[in-house]
Amino acid sequence: MSDMPKRVRILEEGPREGFQIEKGPITTARKIELVDSLSQTGLEQIQVTSFVSPQAVPQMADALEVVNGFTRKPGVRYTALWLNDKGLERALATQKLDIRGSLSLTASEKFLLRNQKRTLAENVNAVRSIIGMYKHYNVTVDRASIMAAFGCNFEGEISTERVLDMVRQLFELAEEGGVTLKTLSLADTMAWATPGSIKRVVGAVRERYPDLELSLHLHDTRGMGVANAYAGMQMGVTTFDAAVAGLGGCPFAAHAAAAGNVCTEDLVFMCQEMGIETGVDLEKLIESALLAEDIVGHPLPGSVMKGGSLAKLRAKVAQQVQAQRAA
Amino acid sequence: MSDMPKRVRILEEGPREGFQIEKGPITTARKIELVDSLSQTGLEQIQVTSFVSPQAVPQMADALEVVNGFTRKPGVRYTALWLNDKGLERALATQKLDIRGSLSLTASEKFLLRNQKRTLAENVNAVRSIIGMYKHYNVTVDRASIMAAFGCNFEGEISTERVLDMVRQLFELAEEGGVTLKTLSLADTMAWATPGSIKRVVGAVRERYPDLELSLHLHDTRGMGVANAYAGMQMGVTTFDAAVAGLGGCPFAAHAAAAGNVCTEDLVFMCQEMGIETGVDLEKLIESALLAEDIVGHPLPGSVMKGGSLAKLRAKVAQQVQAQRAA
Repeated sequence: MSDMPKRVRILEEGPREGFQIEKGPITTARKIELVDSLSQTGLEQIQVTSFVSPQAVPQMADALEVVNGFTRKPGVRYTALWLNDKGLERALATQKLDIRGSLSLTASEKFLLRNQKRTLAENVNAVRSIIGMYKHYNVTVDRASIMAAFGCNFEGEISTERVLDMVRQLFELAEEGGVTLKTLSLADTMAWATPGSIKRVVGAVRERYPDLELSLHLHDTRGMGVANAYAGMQMGVTTFDAAVAGLGGCPFAAHAAAAGNVCTEDLVFMCQEMGIETGVDLEKLIESALLAEDIVGHPLPGSVMKGGSLAKLRAKVAQQVQAQRAA
Repeated sequence: MSDMPKRVRILEEGPREGFQIEKGPITTARKIELVDSLSQTGLEQIQVTSFVSPQAVPQMADALEVVNGFTRKPGVRYTALWLNDKGLERALATQKLDIRGSLSLTASEKFLLRNQKRTLAENVNAVRSIIGMYKHYNVTVDRASIMAAFGCNFEGEISTERVLDMVRQLFELAEEGGVTLKTLSLADTMAWATPGSIKRVVGAVRERYPDLELSLHLHDTRGMGVANAYAGMQMGVTTFDAAVAGLGGCPFAAHAAAAGNVCTEDLVFMCQEMGIETGVDLEKLIESALLAEDIVGHPLPGSVMKGGSLAKLRAKVAQQVQAQRAA
């Protein structure tokens, strides 16, 4: 475990990942309530909402109101998602978010063709115009991500060589555009990863780019989220996207695509028990998870929010020991 | 990953762990249906039921009828649980089970006092009389287990030294009783383990007893089950107890104790994807998991049963590739 990090950064995506997929109408006030609750947990970054087409994603139509409504806590970064200049403009107009640009390539051409009607080559050009967009709005870009890096429902296996080639292309695009990439995120978009492929792909990227900060975006559709995060940590990954309570999918839907990100508090629990710092207060995070469940109105897949942390049990044991000594 | 096993043995405990905790009355016929379904999956061992007091555990009152009713499949071992000579006699009387004895010590005295009203020393004596019982009934004993090996709700941390001391005592008791232990099971009875403690405890036991087959009994109360199993495999553990669909607990119960074993099909999925043989047909196992959910009548926590395996997706991709070539 020589490579295990001393500290990991867990970036909260629950409010965006979660509320985007929920069918039930969730009021703006309750969305704000969750963001404000998460702000008290010690999480360093919270993705608040998504500035996408209200026609395509009606659940996100109140993005502006959510951003206007929450209370910024000093030291916390508040981010949002956008897919084009219109979305970015809306995010910038709030003057309340921490706007940072990110470049993205997708490792599966079939997924790209299906979802964005683009070839791999067209996607590279799209990144060029996205760099242009960020320059136009004077937005710093320091991060890139590779979607479907571990496998694809429409293309099957994704080779490590393909992923390495994508990283190379991202660095070329960045250099060409005068951008310095600090962080690379590998996304298991369709939950194909297991600890074995995490080790293989992360290991290969790390070997070629030893100074790059690596981040994992893991989905829990097949129950591998926490194990994959652990395998990632063993390979020196220090940053993870996660969603409080496992928000972002209904585990009881027959639709396999509907599974959420790895659960934030389960990940924080594992880190805490293994002596890895996260800066997060687990008890407060469990409160946020229970709040998220109350807001969506159905059970969420997180485990520690149900099973409880060990801190309370330890405190109870310590109390009893003290009582016995006093007696 | 040099220590990763080529093959692991997954021992199914679902019918026993699961039906013991379910409140709703489950008919004997449906219990038999699940055992017969599991028999078709390639699992090498299935724990069918529990011969315990019908007053204490009314859900297991039909243990004899369940055993009489299922159809033995050649090559599969069918086991049961008992806690005393009365239970063992009932199990033996069925003449249909694979009866094998196991010794057990508990690493937490507070847990022992609470659950069995015994001290650690009294528990050692209990093992002596259990060896006597197995001799009396001419039952082979080749396995021992340590309960609460990773922590206890009533005692807190359990030191690695304590666990090593328990193993030493078990070997002494075995030698004294003329028993040869082949397998040692470490049970995370109250779900305190994380990959870090799995590595520490398993590593220490393995270092001192390099030839002993190690087994893990993992509960998933805090979502660590699969990650803990993976950490165990990295330390060379080759045998795991598991429960189909995660049977054995209701993840939506507020009661933390009510969480099940690590989910069989999620574990099989991980192994299969990592090239570790289990001998289990994942698709058939998913069918058994869906059957289990139908039988208990509420959602069960397994993930792969909802997210699906990757085999079907790969087959679909292969079909499309073939169709394109033909066109």
